[in-house]
Amino acid sequence: MTSAENTKTAAILVIGDEILSGRTKDKNIGWIAEQLNQMGIDLCEARVIADDKDTIIRHVKTLSDTYDYLFTSGGIGPTHDDITTQSIAEAFNKSVIRHPEAVRRLLKHYEGTDIPFNEARQKMADIPEDADLIDNPVSAAPGFILHNVYVMAGVPSIMQSMFEGLKDQLEGGQKKCRLTVQCAIGEGTIATIMASVSDAFDGLSVGSYPWFKPGQFGTAVVVSSKNRDDVFQAAEMVAKLVREDGYDATILDEGQD
Amino acid sequence: MTSAENTKTAAILVIGDEILSGRTKDKNIGWIAEQLNQMGIDLCEARVIADDKDTIIRHVKTLSDTYDYLFTSGGIGPTHDDITTQSIAEAFNKSVIRHPEAVRRLLKHYEGTDIPFNEARQKMADIPEDADLIDNPVSAAPGFILHNVYVMAGVPSIMQSMFEGLKDQLEGGQKKCRLTVQCAIGEGTIATIMASVSDAFDGLSVGSYPWFKPGQFGTAVVVSSKNRDDVFQAAEMVAKLVREDGYDATILDEGQD
Repeated sequence: MTSAENTKTAAILVIGDEILSGRTKDKNIGWIAEQLNQMGIDLCEARVIADDKDTIIRHVKTLSDTYDYLFTSGGIGPTHDDITTQSIAEAFNKSVIRHPEAVRRLLKHYEGTDIPFNEARQKMADIPEDADLIDNPVSAAPGFILHNVYVMAGVPSIMQSMFEGLKDQLEGGQKKCRLTVQCAIGEGTIATIMASVSDAFDGLSVGSYPWFKPGQFGTAVVVSSKNRDDVFQAAEMVAKLVREDGYDATILDEGQD
Repeated sequence: MTSAENTKTAAILVIGDEILSGRTKDKNIGWIAEQLNQMGIDLCEARVIADDKDTIIRHVKTLSDTYDYLFTSGGIGPTHDDITTQSIAEAFNKSVIRHPEAVRRLLKHYEGTDIPFNEARQKMADIPEDADLIDNPVSAAPGFILHNVYVMAGVPSIMQSMFEGLKDQLEGGQKKCRLTVQCAIGEGTIATIMASVSDAFDGLSVGSYPWFKPGQFGTAVVVSSKNRDDVFQAAEMVAKLVREDGYDATILDEGQD
């Protein structure tokens, strides 16, 4: 069992002009966030930045220095605007080499197709020296790990397949237990109850998320903690106090939000 | 017409534990990004951070110092975990006051309902001194503007209604023109074409976004620039070169991605 003190911390860096222009909606932050949460790794921060070398270097250095793990997505494709690999190499004063194993994987992937392994596709085998490869079961072109930075593709399906393959290497911690209490009550009415529940348990988080539908409203109260017993007791306490005020409250099953 | 030199810059700060835990998927970055893009404001960066006072203060100071506009979402509700207002006030050495106009709006909103204007709901009228209110047409509780920081709700519908009301106050610039060329060709095959198109025009961005469907794949090439003529010429050039290589290419209508 891992104590809160040695829980690993993480950040996500999404690299891509297309996210900042609004053309593409990011799906990677939410997906990685869920994965890390399930593994008991504490996601502290996520950033979206432009495809600009100095910008990438600056953020990679900051986040790599601050957290145990940094996960990046985007900018490792074959085209001229894919500059993540070169930038991350420079952030750690490394050269980029044409990686023989990456070349082998790409050659095998294109074998028997009419897709030429041209200069642009060969670029996807360029990896910073001393980096380890991240498998890409979808389209072969690997990601890489350099120090504590996990460099993955931006396309969600490819990024997900990369993360699935590397996650066993990450040091997880004790997962937070989380329960949701659905309350047929406005957020402003439940505030006092939430504060008193929060005060009653050490290390318990109590969050409230109001929702609105035509003619209906309510608040999802989410209690979470590494102490599973506390979470169940706190959820009962929320439901009891809400019901005492004359409103409906339902504790959802674990994992049901 | 605004030149690139005085284009306003912006950042987004999403404040909320529920995004970092993966429980809630952020929709605000993508929505605000689209709005700013349409207004010709350059979104340079977006961050997602936890509901923690020191963290909020640190990021607000950095982003407010670096960019012309900072838009925040989340943490201005009535409950104990809503600490954005207090934190942003502290970032600028301001006190929080119970704002008379905010109180008036909330009282009016709850008038004739059985919802009590209790202490928790009164908290939503707490605003940093010297801040201007941001209208909330959905649920009355206002956001606020302090220096160059625009503080909005986290619930997307409320945030959007706030932004719609304030955007006329923002200094927009010359909008980038953007065209998409759909190419029935792999990203690795089109890379050389993209690089040559990119080189042919000053200040032109050329991005490529590969897509995959069962049995099909292709690349959306997106050309964008403040120079509208360049964009149309560049799109024609992409399509021509792709077709010369023997693949289909279609220039989509403006605004169609």
